Amino acid sequence: MYFASDNSSGVAPEILAAVTAANPGYAPSYGTDPVMDRVRARIRDLFEAPEAAVYLVATGTAANALSLAVLVEPWQTVYCHRLAHIEQDECGAPEFFTGGAKLVLVDGENAKMTPETLRARIAATRKGDVHGVQRGAVSITNVTELGSVYSADELRALTGVAREYGLPVHLDGARFANAVVATGASPAELSWKSGVDVLSFGGTKNGCMGVEAVVIFDPRRAWEFELRRKRGAHLFSKHRYLSAQMDAYLTDGLWLSLAGRANAMADRLKAGLATVPGAAITHPADANVIFAAWPRALHRHALGAGARYYQVPGDPDPEGPDDAVIGARLVTSWSTTEEDVDRFLALIRGQD
Amino acid sequence: MYFASDNSSGVAPEILAAVTAANPGYAPSYGTDPVMDRVRARIRDLFEAPEAAVYLVATGTAANALSLAVLVEPWQTVYCHRLAHIEQDECGAPEFFTGGAKLVLVDGENAKMTPETLRARIAATRKGDVHGVQRGAVSITNVTELGSVYSADELRALTGVAREYGLPVHLDGARFANAVVATGASPAELSWKSGVDVLSFGGTKNGCMGVEAVVIFDPRRAWEFELRRKRGAHLFSKHRYLSAQMDAYLTDGLWLSLAGRANAMADRLKAGLATVPGAAITHPADANVIFAAWPRALHRHALGAGARYYQVPGDPDPEGPDDAVIGARLVTSWSTTEEDVDRFLALIRGQD
Amino acid sequence: MYFASDNSSGVAPEILAAVTAANPGYAPSYGTDPVMDRVRARIRDLFEAPEAAVYLVATGTAANALSLAVLVEPWQTVYCHRLAHIEQDECGAPEFFTGGAKLVLVDGENAKMTPETLRARIAATRKGDVHGVQRGAVSITNVTELGSVYSADELRALTGVAREYGLPVHLDGARFANAVVATGASPAELSWKSGVDVLSFGGTKNGCMGVEAVVIFDPRRAWEFELRRKRGAHLFSKHRYLSAQMDAYLTDGLWLSLAGRANAMADRLKAGLATVPGAAITHPADANVIFAAWPRALHRHALGAGARYYQVPGDPDPEGPDDAVIGARLVTSWSTTEEDVDRFLALIRGQD
Amino acid sequence: MYFASDNSSGVAPEILAAVTAANPGYAPSYGTDPVMDRVRARIRDLFEAPEAAVYLVATGTAANALSLAVLVEPWQTVYCHRLAHIEQDECGAPEFFTGGAKLVLVDGENAKMTPETLRARIAATRKGDVHGVQRGAVSITNVTELGSVYSADELRALTGVAREYGLPVHLDGARFANAVVATGASPAELSWKSGVDVLSFGGTKNGCMGVEAVVIFDPRRAWEFELRRKRGAHLFSKHRYLSAQMDAYLTDGLWLSLAGRANAMADRLKAGLATVPGAAITHPADANVIFAAWPRALHRHALGAGARYYQVPGDPDPEGPDDAVIGARLVTSWSTTEEDVDRFLALIRGQD
Repeated sequence: MYFASDNSSGVAPEILAAVTAANPGYAPSYGTDPVMDRVRARIRDLFEAPEAAVYLVATGTAANALSLAVLVEPWQTVYCHRLAHIEQDECGAPEFFTGGAKLVLVDGENAKMTPETLRARIAATRKGDVHGVQRGAVSITNVTELGSVYSADELRALTGVAREYGLPVHLDGARFANAVVATGASPAELSWKSGVDVLSFGGTKNGCMGVEAVVIFDPRRAWEFELRRKRGAHLFSKHRYLSAQMDAYLTDGLWLSLAGRANAMADRLKAGLATVPGAAITHPADANVIFAAWPRALHRHALGAGARYYQVPGDPDPEGPDDAVIGARLVTSWSTTEEDVDRFLALIRGQD
Repeated sequence: MYFASDNSSGVAPEILAAVTAANPGYAPSYGTDPVMDRVRARIRDLFEAPEAAVYLVATGTAANALSLAVLVEPWQTVYCHRLAHIEQDECGAPEFFTGGAKLVLVDGENAKMTPETLRARIAATRKGDVHGVQRGAVSITNVTELGSVYSADELRALTGVAREYGLPVHLDGARFANAVVATGASPAELSWKSGVDVLSFGGTKNGCMGVEAVVIFDPRRAWEFELRRKRGAHLFSKHRYLSAQMDAYLTDGLWLSLAGRANAMADRLKAGLATVPGAAITHPADANVIFAAWPRALHRHALGAGARYYQVPGDPDPEGPDDAVIGARLVTSWSTTEEDVDRFLALIRGQD
Repeated sequence: MYFASDNSSGVAPEILAAVTAANPGYAPSYGTDPVMDRVRARIRDLFEAPEAAVYLVATGTAANALSLAVLVEPWQTVYCHRLAHIEQDECGAPEFFTGGAKLVLVDGENAKMTPETLRARIAATRKGDVHGVQRGAVSITNVTELGSVYSADELRALTGVAREYGLPVHLDGARFANAVVATGASPAELSWKSGVDVLSFGGTKNGCMGVEAVVIFDPRRAWEFELRRKRGAHLFSKHRYLSAQMDAYLTDGLWLSLAGRANAMADRLKAGLATVPGAAITHPADANVIFAAWPRALHRHALGAGARYYQVPGDPDPEGPDDAVIGARLVTSWSTTEEDVDRFLALIRGQD
Repeated sequence: MYFASDNSSGVAPEILAAVTAANPGYAPSYGTDPVMDRVRARIRDLFEAPEAAVYLVATGTAANALSLAVLVEPWQTVYCHRLAHIEQDECGAPEFFTGGAKLVLVDGENAKMTPETLRARIAATRKGDVHGVQRGAVSITNVTELGSVYSADELRALTGVAREYGLPVHLDGARFANAVVATGASPAELSWKSGVDVLSFGGTKNGCMGVEAVVIFDPRRAWEFELRRKRGAHLFSKHRYLSAQMDAYLTDGLWLSLAGRANAMADRLKAGLATVPGAAITHPADANVIFAAWPRALHRHALGAGARYYQVPGDPDPEGPDDAVIGARLVTSWSTTEEDVDRFLALIRGQD
């Protein structure tokens, strides 16, 4: 009953096997290993982007911050949702890697920007006035931080606003696989075909050990990215172990089946929660992240029985009344089982 | 016959087994896993430093650059040898992470600073003059970039100079294990007992997959380090796989036996090269890195037969005369075998 | 009828005379001139702060950005009002000088933060969580960007919130003199006695040529400030001309009489506008900055007749209907005359 | 007898008069004043560069650091002489403004790089290797820090090396006027016609109060410069006083007559020193900066009698023997008089 984060899950067996299989012998270092050539080809193929530059790093924050750094100048803005991971959870890595660009926070329900809220913020950044920071890039997260998912149409509407102003677009796809499964759209449709210029294509949360691909659809930024990656200390010497993870992840659609399992378990959880008296899903839970709420007494019961998840925003008064409604974030992963879900639901129903 | 770099070798079986063993189930993320507690205890024990703060990152450049960032202000200097990895091979990562500190280059034979050359550079940095950058930290590499090793006495002499000026000391120990084996000194003697404040304690080159420990002997800098690590995108979510590597590395002295094997193979190689007509060891090869030189014809023969190593500084004229003497860098690792060495020596002797 | 900005006014005659008087002969450079000693003593005296460190720079942005840089780390926040000059009008200088600190925007009417809105933002910054940026400093502007003024009591209430959280406080006093005149409080009461740690004490807008003092009430940060000033290229070689300006500014209360004139002219303007049909003061105009509004037809008339001021936020439709109400920002200065004001009022009344 | 620095001299009367004349009335701020239009036209005319972008800042360090920031990326090098002002005397401002570029130090007698020493350093920066920093820009100082002057031919030879490698060239012309006078070459010949891309054109040391022009011969970098200047807090609100200085400086060849006077006084000083027993000029003193040496006893006598200049590198042992030879740096300026020189020579001759 571990729903704290998909980061807490282990490595899918196929990926661990690939890491093990990559071990014997010597391999060229720093990304020149032959498996990386295959990874590059696979990603280009998968994204229908034969020119794309493809790089691997080990953390999602590295993927995001390095991507933004090639898109904006230090005196520019990054437009993102107020709840975006790059704003809330990266200790200022985007500011560090970009040399001090300013994150401009966009509103919108369920952690989704809308064309209107985005346009309002961009328009409010004065153009050509040397006293203010300049319009830079737009960064979108899909799956969002509240568990909602942008459809390809919604993405296109947002990137269309960026295009009106001539701004490039980054997509934080730490849970890109879950978004692909949730929407049924193709990887290309959820990225460049919808106007995304640089994609953080997550692997870690979805069954890898620690690998994210950065896919740069316009390869003119490739060399700069390589230099920034090295300078940021994110170029691995024994790169073959990153390559092996990503290679297995992309073999036989593993990445989609892993995400499919996570999303299915979230669906099962949602369906179950819908029948729990006093519990409510508080945001559209389109993929593998569920925000819900129920009375404190049920939290106590579930947490006491060993369930693991975050109360949001944290219980302000753990000694407070039993019937006060407290939020919960539940994240499923490739390794969540039906038993986990059902046991948890039984707890929340007070049956266990 | 792969002597290009210890980075090209694989992962020691014990370490790979530990990674595999770490996989089942869920684990707290971002460094809060229980194995990390054990790693911290092991390192404190090993270094006889019960207060030391211990952190894991995945690359040597991250370990170095983050270490320097907690030791110097942006307007200060880092004194290091002209050939130091932080100067030559990190694409300016120290400048990036420190906010623009200035690396001041110190001379010395065999990539070793001497108390005299170090003192001269420190003294030449004007003190208290707002027009110039200010004296910052000293960074020493052991094993050095030319394969020589500082003894504990030599280290103490260098850090003594730093102390005269009140400067903290960083040690780049990407090959710390090889230095310990080469000198016979204890980890504490080669670090804090010799005046080192922050140590990059390498694992990757010596049989790990990608893990380096940063050991901060004065724990007052710990929280700043944690923030810089996160902001630098070097905090792993699935941290347990870093912990597992380092835990196995430190179990039953594995780190020393791996380095012992590498050093022994280098000794065998050195002994063999000493008997090759026309070949010479060009720098003291105290550990597992050998700089040597021999005629171009032998390079052609060896490289053509599949040996892998770097010509240094690169053959300026690959079509040049056969008898011109060209440098070579040979690095052994935990996985180098006697057969590798002997086959290579036979090639260089022209017998194969 | 020049109300565009106090930056457009010239230099007060006493200050220009002091610059001229400073010219003959040679003087030590880089802030070691004897007049600077007198300036330091005067400011310490004026602020009843015998230990304060005092430095001169030439721009308000330099004063603000350097002040913030000594107060916050790169991974920390600066809490300021959404309309603060440091957020809106400095092209990201605070981010540049601090190494990428994050400005967190606080709401509040009339460009004033309240204890409640400030506390809400500080409290929302998670404490001790390495994933988020850390609580840094509070920056307050007085006179605010909308012309309102914080009383000493209001300041104390705000800095009290900062103190609750252990945060230092910066005051952007580009128009500090106008605030002193408006409140009748002493310089000390409007700064350290109300909890301000570092003050940007403006001169330029109030009759100087280009000089701002940074007053650091806790002198332990002095040497760091000096290094940051030099590294930021803000240490003047011919510093005597900065010293001379500030010295004259502080002689015989000149700084207060200049601000008094500006404030008095704003009062006259306000009183006049109150009698103009269709015109309204839109924010409390406590000092020398007035935000008002009146029909487009009157703007056309006034601007056409040579009045200079900003329409805010700019007329979106200059060809639009005559009776649409459009905002105006009017700034008076030491050099504004009664004739200027009266002629302008006549224009706005449509009598001219 | 003030030879400590040209920074210690005052403002030439014509320039002070222009500042005074600029004062009455209101003027547009932030560089939009009409006098700036004239300054721009004058500089374009003077440099035969009708497309050049021209900006004013108040310090030489700002001119240099901002110029370099538009020429290099953070992961690139700046090649400069080991004694360059940007390396020695700006507290790391180039590193700060460029985001951490690496200054690579070039040798050469009399503070002059040679094509050979420059080429050697550029060639030693590995090209296209992501592990090392990348080749960036070349920065040349003329007049050099040791008082020597590059001829147009020498400049062309150096910039020719830069061109071989495709690198842009910055010229630190804090004493550009003195170099023009010394060489007899035209401003264009000492800048873009000799391959300079961006020039720091000094005014402060040569009779201005505090103004330097940055002349960007390729105007595509203009807007970036403007943003960096504002973000660096170097855009003056009351810009008219910078414009007025530069305008007067360029009127009727004032800048050349001021430099001519300084150079002539240096010539008189040199000629006199040549006749002083025990004194020697230690570097070619081509303009207004003289490095010389004489016995300690004469230093004591001269300094005791009120002469002001720097001993270089500082007297290590002020109580030492009278006949030990100690270096001196003497700088003349527009305001140096024949009486100053002659009185000083008399002192050194021991006749006074």
